[in-house]
Amino acid sequence: MKGSKYGTHRVIKNKGDLPQPAEKIDNNMEIYDNEILIEVKTLNIDSASFTQIKKEAGGDEKQIEKIMQRIVNNRGKHHNPVTGSGGMLVGIVEEIGEDLKGKIELEVGDEIATLVSLSLTPLLIEEILEIRKDTDQVDIKGKAVLFESGIYAKLPEDMSRNLALAVLDVAGAPAQTAKLVEPGDSVLIIGAGGKSGTLCLHEAQKRAGISGKVIALEYSQEGCERVESLGLADAIIQADATKPTEVLNKIEEVTNGELVDLTINCVNIPNTELSCILATKDSGKVYFFSMATSFTAAALGAEGVGKDTEMLIGNGYTKNHSEIALQVLRENEDIKELFEKIYL
Amino acid sequence: MKGSKYGTHRVIKNKGDLPQPAEKIDNNMEIYDNEILIEVKTLNIDSASFTQIKKEAGGDEKQIEKIMQRIVNNRGKHHNPVTGSGGMLVGIVEEIGEDLKGKIELEVGDEIATLVSLSLTPLLIEEILEIRKDTDQVDIKGKAVLFESGIYAKLPEDMSRNLALAVLDVAGAPAQTAKLVEPGDSVLIIGAGGKSGTLCLHEAQKRAGISGKVIALEYSQEGCERVESLGLADAIIQADATKPTEVLNKIEEVTNGELVDLTINCVNIPNTELSCILATKDSGKVYFFSMATSFTAAALGAEGVGKDTEMLIGNGYTKNHSEIALQVLRENEDIKELFEKIYL
Repeated sequence: MKGSKYGTHRVIKNKGDLPQPAEKIDNNMEIYDNEILIEVKTLNIDSASFTQIKKEAGGDEKQIEKIMQRIVNNRGKHHNPVTGSGGMLVGIVEEIGEDLKGKIELEVGDEIATLVSLSLTPLLIEEILEIRKDTDQVDIKGKAVLFESGIYAKLPEDMSRNLALAVLDVAGAPAQTAKLVEPGDSVLIIGAGGKSGTLCLHEAQKRAGISGKVIALEYSQEGCERVESLGLADAIIQADATKPTEVLNKIEEVTNGELVDLTINCVNIPNTELSCILATKDSGKVYFFSMATSFTAAALGAEGVGKDTEMLIGNGYTKNHSEIALQVLRENEDIKELFEKIYL
Repeated sequence: MKGSKYGTHRVIKNKGDLPQPAEKIDNNMEIYDNEILIEVKTLNIDSASFTQIKKEAGGDEKQIEKIMQRIVNNRGKHHNPVTGSGGMLVGIVEEIGEDLKGKIELEVGDEIATLVSLSLTPLLIEEILEIRKDTDQVDIKGKAVLFESGIYAKLPEDMSRNLALAVLDVAGAPAQTAKLVEPGDSVLIIGAGGKSGTLCLHEAQKRAGISGKVIALEYSQEGCERVESLGLADAIIQADATKPTEVLNKIEEVTNGELVDLTINCVNIPNTELSCILATKDSGKVYFFSMATSFTAAALGAEGVGKDTEMLIGNGYTKNHSEIALQVLRENEDIKELFEKIYL
């Protein structure tokens, strides 16, 4: 039996929805002829989602397990009802539907990462094996289904599974940075010390070039030191991105009052929209990669301060995003070493 | 005493926030030296917000009054806590702070519309005089404060106050359309029969020109007939924008499977993100003007269906937006007549 390309045949509630906005989808693990069955090894929970889950659980692992199981039981997918976000997974191809066999570059036994969000992926968790709180990764025994339109990446052979997974999870950010940054641009990366921030710094510096200026803004002392040791920014600002007036003052300082051409927001906490808007020129762009972004806060925030800035919703997918993101680790040995230390 | 340009001196909770994201602001009507005091005549509540309020009130006017007063009492501004949105107001300049006198083109007694959101405007409602449920307009006795960075428009003399107010409330949409549409573009307007949709249709048709194609999508039969009688669209589709697969099929039909270059979303209901994304080319743009847009639904939706579409957050402000929006009514007598019939 053939299902819809986009997976609508699995929507239980509400019918007519696509699987992502759907309240509940069918996580029966008998696949349709145009689906792929995956034996899941590791879930990489979206950072905003896992932060919320850890907070709700008071940091307790048993509670984290319960919350994760509750989400999947209620929705058929790991779609956090509070943050609205998902994450991604790695696993082994267990079965390929009849209609797809020979038409795709996958074989049973291949290790892949799904590059569509967990918020639309039918998932069954049989057992939670290990929770790695620092890296938002959770090893499980379980299965998942990939639809025909679902994107994925075969895992590269020149780096470890967990390293590739950590990078692929945020692949959209460096790839979009590569597309947006022009030579000579001044670029502000907010949340520069984090995973996606670091990858964005590398791409921003490469694309802005010698005539450009890359500014890293980061909350933690530790993060600032990391950015400094990597040598990826022309200026490093330690500040709280939820304090727009403080951020504005500091950006005015390092840009001689000119503000920046492009701001990329990689912070996984709410209320950072206005800092981005105030830091950016009227003619500039703000790219919101953070899943904690509020649409209305951004729209009304820009209007409220009378700024004509273009604001973009971070698209987790852009052409060749997985290749671009993985390539950063090949180009920059320091980032690779750092990520191996932090995310493994 | 001089306050901050952006109004941060009035933030009560949380300190350090700007007035829009703030939980509560000070609506004491004694103004600072760089503020403007306004005697409010009419509130034009944001459509998503007023829809929510009417629903919560079960359509009862006394309940609507109570909810509006509760919002303003709790927050010092008409900032709907459910939708996160505001609206705008019209009133008479009652007092201009010492620092601004002679520096701005306003005098006491001028009739203005504030073009910053009610979600950041200190407001005091003394009495609610009339609720016009069909137009989201509420006449009140009350006062409001405009900050130094606040934008406003003096009301034009060639049209009525309520007509200008209705148009200025959504001024960003036609102005952004004017900026985004290129000659030859195929443009889809979702929610085309509504107020901002109609203004966008006019601008889209003008800019796309004879080689372009303007497609109007509208839910109601009545709205479709309105669009048809205005003659502003090359194709009119009656469909439910919360049903992405249905929308996709119809757009494929009228574009010979090519999809559109630009989609502008003007619908004031949730769950329309995916229809926009599916209807738009990979190389195209989606402009979300609706305040009911969910950031994560858009971001994850695009990723989930593997689309490389650029997605923009509707900015209520863009340079000269009030002039562009009011000009539509001067260029198009039919729209003016229609708006006079519906929004007055």
